[in-house]
Amino acid sequence: MRLVVIGAQAAGLAAASEARRVDPGLEILVLEKGSRISYGACGLPYVVEGQVQSFDQLRVYTPEYFARERRIAIRTGAAVTAIAHPRREVVLGSGERVPYDKLILTLGTRRKLPDAPNVFAMDSWEQVEQLRAELASGRPRRAAVIGAGYVGLEAAGALRTQGLAVSVYESSADVLQRADPWLTQAVTAHLERFGIAVHRHWRGDLPEAGLIVYAAGLLPQTALAADAGVALGATGAIAVTSRGETNLGGVYAAGDCAEVRHRITGRAVWMPLGTTARKTGQIAGGAAAGARAEFGGIVGTSIVRVCGLSVATTGFSPAQARQEGLQPVGVEIRAPDKAAYFGGRPLAVQLVADRKSGHLIGGAIVGEQGVHGRINVLATALTAGMTPEDLAQLDLAYAPADSTVTGPLQIAARQLAKLLH
Amino acid sequence: MRLVVIGAQAAGLAAASEARRVDPGLEILVLEKGSRISYGACGLPYVVEGQVQSFDQLRVYTPEYFARERRIAIRTGAAVTAIAHPRREVVLGSGERVPYDKLILTLGTRRKLPDAPNVFAMDSWEQVEQLRAELASGRPRRAAVIGAGYVGLEAAGALRTQGLAVSVYESSADVLQRADPWLTQAVTAHLERFGIAVHRHWRGDLPEAGLIVYAAGLLPQTALAADAGVALGATGAIAVTSRGETNLGGVYAAGDCAEVRHRITGRAVWMPLGTTARKTGQIAGGAAAGARAEFGGIVGTSIVRVCGLSVATTGFSPAQARQEGLQPVGVEIRAPDKAAYFGGRPLAVQLVADRKSGHLIGGAIVGEQGVHGRINVLATALTAGMTPEDLAQLDLAYAPADSTVTGPLQIAARQLAKLLH
Repeated sequence: MRLVVIGAQAAGLAAASEARRVDPGLEILVLEKGSRISYGACGLPYVVEGQVQSFDQLRVYTPEYFARERRIAIRTGAAVTAIAHPRREVVLGSGERVPYDKLILTLGTRRKLPDAPNVFAMDSWEQVEQLRAELASGRPRRAAVIGAGYVGLEAAGALRTQGLAVSVYESSADVLQRADPWLTQAVTAHLERFGIAVHRHWRGDLPEAGLIVYAAGLLPQTALAADAGVALGATGAIAVTSRGETNLGGVYAAGDCAEVRHRITGRAVWMPLGTTARKTGQIAGGAAAGARAEFGGIVGTSIVRVCGLSVATTGFSPAQARQEGLQPVGVEIRAPDKAAYFGGRPLAVQLVADRKSGHLIGGAIVGEQGVHGRINVLATALTAGMTPEDLAQLDLAYAPADSTVTGPLQIAARQLAKLLH
Repeated sequence: MRLVVIGAQAAGLAAASEARRVDPGLEILVLEKGSRISYGACGLPYVVEGQVQSFDQLRVYTPEYFARERRIAIRTGAAVTAIAHPRREVVLGSGERVPYDKLILTLGTRRKLPDAPNVFAMDSWEQVEQLRAELASGRPRRAAVIGAGYVGLEAAGALRTQGLAVSVYESSADVLQRADPWLTQAVTAHLERFGIAVHRHWRGDLPEAGLIVYAAGLLPQTALAADAGVALGATGAIAVTSRGETNLGGVYAAGDCAEVRHRITGRAVWMPLGTTARKTGQIAGGAAAGARAEFGGIVGTSIVRVCGLSVATTGFSPAQARQEGLQPVGVEIRAPDKAAYFGGRPLAVQLVADRKSGHLIGGAIVGEQGVHGRINVLATALTAGMTPEDLAQLDLAYAPADSTVTGPLQIAARQLAKLLH
């Protein structure tokens, strides 16, 4: 019995590892078109910023590690050009055919870059190396960042830290792909204090700038799958079951190329993130090897740090909730994360509940410190279907070095509970 | 209709404020035996350490604020000596009788201090002022701390920071009132690196030391209530309903003098903490004014910071779980809180589930940073009745500045999920 995994990044390696754990006897082969596996792509903006110096700092494991410790064979430089599912074979660029019994697709994303010499992306080590070389030349003085998603914002912060004049261009009305004027205002005001202009509703030609970082237009990589008859969902990503299986029996998909279920609406969504890639990879790998685990879905949690500000979201903003047919009731408060004598700083907290069900359905937290833990408490609470009153009553830890007695999240929850009554 | 509240600290002021919110027409009088209200008692160890300089930094509100903004009358220096419930009157030390329709008892704790001139507690501003004066004299070179609960450990850290030789004496086998050899080992090893010796299983006379901080033997303050016929529970604290009502109709109790329900076992426990005091005060105040809210209970979450180490617990340790008749299955792991290139430091994580129900029932986290948010995620997960698999699948936020991709909590949850299968 042979499992072939296409792709050796977060989802592919998680899939292979879980398959090995479930079935010690399985033959496992991972095919990776690039030369490197398993690097921490989320650390790439910090290479530009200079906080990370070398690829080795981002590398987690080597092919040798997988061969030795997990009996997983990884072939790098192995580009798959076709899947012949009726014959249970994948075809490599060299013409070689590799048979499989079970197949897992972790194809990642693609981005169509404008064809101009000064345009860079931040999606791979190679691209970031080129960007670093251009920065080191000292030529670019002005940078334009296309796209105000989290990669774009991180890139903008990193380039500003390097001393460039930076402008961000976003086609929609809001940042971070979240219809939320409150959040957009908080983020853009902060960036403007650091001298980064954010142009929204942007249309037209590429701006004039010595350096352009293109962080827009991300799409799921699906051509190989679609050509083989794998069905895509309405989002354009690969449709999968809760066990990661596609419409083709024995063919699974995971990570950034696949849809996931949103826990709040039950609907299939496409929200590519490394955390989800690991989890869905693990589920698909287990399923391909015979395990019965299912993925419960996501709630859409993310955090980004830019110019010293952490911006975190989970669930839906009020506007997003309305688009989903929910009846959002929200509060927005400001409160310090801890006492002033312990270096407390203000946190802005948004909480959203659904009037009909009474459940928490989203929120956002913005501030210099204390954001990560709090957004995760909120993500946990809304996954559990808690109400604002439930959140306000939670027995959370307090010490003066960490929080105020009630804390910003529970202050907001208390206010929202009152609004719902 | 007049509400009288006895005690103007966390629970009493929360009760009065919520009663005012629920019933704008209520007459509200708060009687406080001391001269100060509403100070942050949890900040007192930091006064000893020198991080907090004055009382004003801990003070939250004044009586004038409550009178002006909330129409709540507060009388300080008003010691209640008896409650004549059949007549609906409280009796003050002066002999004055104050009538009430509803009564809320927030009596706090008491501690029987050994009668020796060099013994101090950390329970009030006055005691801490005396301790500071003694420290300022330069006489004490060696300090002994009696009790390794969180007040004792904070005091030990503060005194060590002031340059004294410090030993801690604890009568039980473990620190932080938690039967848990794993946690005790982690904490004592850290303290010993800072030159603080921890003597457990301690019995006998007070140790020889220039200065003794007594942080043991805390009890609920109940005499006034018991004398009036208010029933105490098996823990020795005042027994209350989920709305904070005692056995006497119209008499409520909240904060450190009252029992609370433990969410995991459903049993009444006594765990005095400022966070719980605020919540139970609010419930009792609302109930006395006619609201219907109920308190769901606690899970026993706390955090303490000592010598740069944060030590946080929630739910039960394996030994405690066995005492409660549960069937604990636990894991203990070490993993960095974030990438080394972002200043990551090791975290020690313990997770405990119940084999029978499959639910998470406890855990502990120890480390220099990233502890507070993670213990709160765990507290939220176990309040929701999540399993380790549920915790491992949670959609938590990731950025390199905040965490590793999977994070220590979910690494531990994954391992525990495997043990349960």
